Amino acid sequence: MHCGWFSGNKHPTRSSRNRLLAAPVYCVRTEHKGKAYIFFLLLNSVRYTNMASSLLSHQMRYTVQRSLGLFVPRYRCVSKTATKSSLDFEYNGPSMKTEVPGPRSRQLMKQLNVIQNTDAIHFFCNYEDSRGNYLVDVDGNIMLDIYTQIASIPLGYNHPALFKVMQNPQNLSTFINRPALGILPPEHLPEEIERSLLSIAPRNLRKVQTMACGSCSNENAYKSIFIWYRNKERGNSKPSKKELDTCMINQEPGCPVYSILSFMGGFHGRTFGCLATTHSKSIHKLDIPSLDWPIAPFPKLKYPLEEYTRENAQEEARCLEEVEDLIVKYRKKGKNVAGIVIEPIQSEGGDNHASADFFKKLREIARKHGAAFQVDEVQTGGGSTGKFWAHEHWGMDDAADVVSFSKKMLTGGYFHKDELTPDGPYRIFNTWMGDPSKNLLLSEVLNIIKTEKLLDEVQKSGKALLNGLYDLQLRFPHIVSAARGVGTFCAIDAKNEQMRNTLIEKARSKGVVLGGCGERSIRFRPALVFKEHHAHLFLNIFNDILAELK
Amino acid sequence: MHCGWFSGNKHPTRSSRNRLLAAPVYCVRTEHKGKAYIFFLLLNSVRYTNMASSLLSHQMRYTVQRSLGLFVPRYRCVSKTATKSSLDFEYNGPSMKTEVPGPRSRQLMKQLNVIQNTDAIHFFCNYEDSRGNYLVDVDGNIMLDIYTQIASIPLGYNHPALFKVMQNPQNLSTFINRPALGILPPEHLPEEIERSLLSIAPRNLRKVQTMACGSCSNENAYKSIFIWYRNKERGNSKPSKKELDTCMINQEPGCPVYSILSFMGGFHGRTFGCLATTHSKSIHKLDIPSLDWPIAPFPKLKYPLEEYTRENAQEEARCLEEVEDLIVKYRKKGKNVAGIVIEPIQSEGGDNHASADFFKKLREIARKHGAAFQVDEVQTGGGSTGKFWAHEHWGMDDAADVVSFSKKMLTGGYFHKDELTPDGPYRIFNTWMGDPSKNLLLSEVLNIIKTEKLLDEVQKSGKALLNGLYDLQLRFPHIVSAARGVGTFCAIDAKNEQMRNTLIEKARSKGVVLGGCGERSIRFRPALVFKEHHAHLFLNIFNDILAELK
Repeated sequence: MHCGWFSGNKHPTRSSRNRLLAAPVYCVRTEHKGKAYIFFLLLNSVRYTNMASSLLSHQMRYTVQRSLGLFVPRYRCVSKTATKSSLDFEYNGPSMKTEVPGPRSRQLMKQLNVIQNTDAIHFFCNYEDSRGNYLVDVDGNIMLDIYTQIASIPLGYNHPALFKVMQNPQNLSTFINRPALGILPPEHLPEEIERSLLSIAPRNLRKVQTMACGSCSNENAYKSIFIWYRNKERGNSKPSKKELDTCMINQEPGCPVYSILSFMGGFHGRTFGCLATTHSKSIHKLDIPSLDWPIAPFPKLKYPLEEYTRENAQEEARCLEEVEDLIVKYRKKGKNVAGIVIEPIQSEGGDNHASADFFKKLREIARKHGAAFQVDEVQTGGGSTGKFWAHEHWGMDDAADVVSFSKKMLTGGYFHKDELTPDGPYRIFNTWMGDPSKNLLLSEVLNIIKTEKLLDEVQKSGKALLNGLYDLQLRFPHIVSAARGVGTFCAIDAKNEQMRNTLIEKARSKGVVLGGCGERSIRFRPALVFKEHHAHLFLNIFNDILAELK
Repeated sequence: MHCGWFSGNKHPTRSSRNRLLAAPVYCVRTEHKGKAYIFFLLLNSVRYTNMASSLLSHQMRYTVQRSLGLFVPRYRCVSKTATKSSLDFEYNGPSMKTEVPGPRSRQLMKQLNVIQNTDAIHFFCNYEDSRGNYLVDVDGNIMLDIYTQIASIPLGYNHPALFKVMQNPQNLSTFINRPALGILPPEHLPEEIERSLLSIAPRNLRKVQTMACGSCSNENAYKSIFIWYRNKERGNSKPSKKELDTCMINQEPGCPVYSILSFMGGFHGRTFGCLATTHSKSIHKLDIPSLDWPIAPFPKLKYPLEEYTRENAQEEARCLEEVEDLIVKYRKKGKNVAGIVIEPIQSEGGDNHASADFFKKLREIARKHGAAFQVDEVQTGGGSTGKFWAHEHWGMDDAADVVSFSKKMLTGGYFHKDELTPDGPYRIFNTWMGDPSKNLLLSEVLNIIKTEKLLDEVQKSGKALLNGLYDLQLRFPHIVSAARGVGTFCAIDAKNEQMRNTLIEKARSKGVVLGGCGERSIRFRPALVFKEHHAHLFLNIFNDILAELK
């Protein structure tokens, strides 16, 4: 074992409070079975002494355990936290001062509860002091964030590059003069869209419409699909007077009873159109009037996928057959399926995967029946699967007619084929149609993703994360199972909902923010700056929790 | 006539281009029938020489006309443009260099057309150089903006106070770390909402939920109404298993077939739920599936309202009767009306007014039938009627159960009664639930509205605008009629749609940006910094246009 001192990292941005980390770092190098492991300890800080000694005892315990052969072969021990890399402005690890929510959070909850329902609030945050992968709460707790505001923070908190965008005086006007983009766009809009959105446009989709959020994106994508489908049906002739009159009173034929086919377990948003295609949890849908649109089963696969290829293929075939049956059934009802909407990985619904083969065949079914194929990448898009779009993993030239996005893209919107461009003004329209200030930030995010090769980093850290989860489910099969994922877009199931919630709470109390999905899954949604050492840091903490529950 | 030199206004903010106005101002004082008039001329600038001489000849012409008794009594002549006041950072008047759209705009349209449908685009803007009430386009034309991005710019362009907000380093984090407000709000959220939204909360509504845009606000307001109504119907007991199961597949009883009653001519947004309550133009609704919800007639009143009180009261009574009939009819169909949604002034639908008495009675009908009463103030709210909310003009203590907003409020959202608070977490929810960076800007907007007494200013300039419109319709009754308005929220009808469009185009070519609404109306939607002298400036230009068409 070799030891030595490193100078501590002082993050370069300003802060209103004095919660910055300026502690010297103590480096420990150790070897086990011919492999070198390095880890850092922070000793010259009251705040971090506890964490450091905790990590130290952690390491000691695991070294002993490993020597005694208590670990299954693929398990990654704490020492891998040493592969710390370039994200120098963030904290060196979690640091907990209080329970979470702490006293200040609870006080603020009371205050906000006078104004709003606060039942969903986890805790209040100090975003000014949050850094990179670390979210700081109002009680001074520093937590490794593997949920990132429901998968919506691309570069972690307070990335210096985004600060620079904000500090550039030339950019300020974009933040205070929000235009009605559909009628009076700013001079730089075409160039800005080319630089940002078109630079990562899915293959074959060269048209893009920005929107304010994910729900608006899907709502307007559906509208584009209906307009396109109806134009096809009427032979691209002009609408009749009857159509123009009846649409004003919500009646056929002006408002046709066409439908969008969606999947059980899918989530596409919560406004009325989106909600008619969302089927993940009843609390989202209860008491809200809806539309009679077809809902197909999504394949319920066994994990790891490569071990159950035959059964999984059968399950996928069953679902595809059901899709075709529904399309035929709804056409007979006069409720033609104008489009099919699906997530590449069902996220809110439980991180449910399907094979590339399934999606290829589904896309073919859509084509065969003249329905548009929309891939909802609101949660999967933006790089966390290791490719910019999750559907790129299917390896198709013509994967989709529409791809919607939001969250990590900072702006909502959707790419689409030329033929889905609205055939006139004001058909796809609202006051703002997005927000150029979000495009501006997105441009810089994309720049950082490229220059720092963050998709490669995601692949590396995702591999570390998933391998670690595989190991943990082998060690704790009575608690966790079905580890799965692509890139860092990973998940694992707990034995039931209660255990899942316990695991999330215990992780939080040890300084890790996680999110649930589906009935009993934990979803991992780190930022793109999540590195291998963060994965190992988490895995060690998670291992402790599982071991305590053993 | 007295003349003298004033130093020109140099606006205090930075600009990337050299299009600033630094021209000395030549002041002309004149008297007519015992009243003093002052006007400014800009002579030391090539750009403004044309405008100045145009204004001068304008004045000369009108002085002659007035002397000859050619004016109707209430007409305001150009000299009133002299009452210029405190908004010193803006331009002194329109200045046209090219036709609009000019060559650069047309070039950019071609560029953007590769990416999006651009049929609705008027021209491209240079927002950096726009100031106060003046919108600058990419061809260097400076236009008086009386449409303000579809009524969504509260303080005009590049207000120095908003620049200060952006330049404060403490605020930057709010712009780059967008939180998931429903689960991880920032520390300052309760305080920020108290300072901003709650400071202008409608009477009796102390709960507020922010959202990203107007459509999302209405969609979620409707959801709140349905949840509240359904809870009442089930006696606030827990939902049954059948309800929980059926809602997942869009079926009753989990997804009840309840409805929202809306009005013909109303506009509440374009997402599926909103669109089912929008009935202003067929192009918004054509080809989009909808819901069978009741649509009542909105009173078609004669203007000026005070001259037709008896006929108008009859028309309103007819509509109210129809509302009650529809509620009963839809209850019989099992499609209970859970809520009524209405704009205080139908905006997109044609600036259709109704009396305070109508709204009072409608509110009573809602109460009588157990339906929530939602006032959609997305376009009317924020001060342009001379009160902060248009419904304040009704003089009611308990005007609404829900008030939705967006546009000039910068953030979307809705105020509501305590009993409409969702009864559990995640029922009204999405990833972002608004954007704290918009709240931050809103706080400063509200501060400026209060300190600069902008509602008083709106009342003054609104009076000048409306009186001018009254005069013009007396002078040009074959072209314009039905001038109407509250505050600066004014409108006038052209004789037909083609004439309306001609008037808007001609105004633009003379440096005034206007917007249409309804079939043949022009709507005036200036910013809150629109002063009396802007009204007179516009009226003179509009008078010229009408005179040319005579």
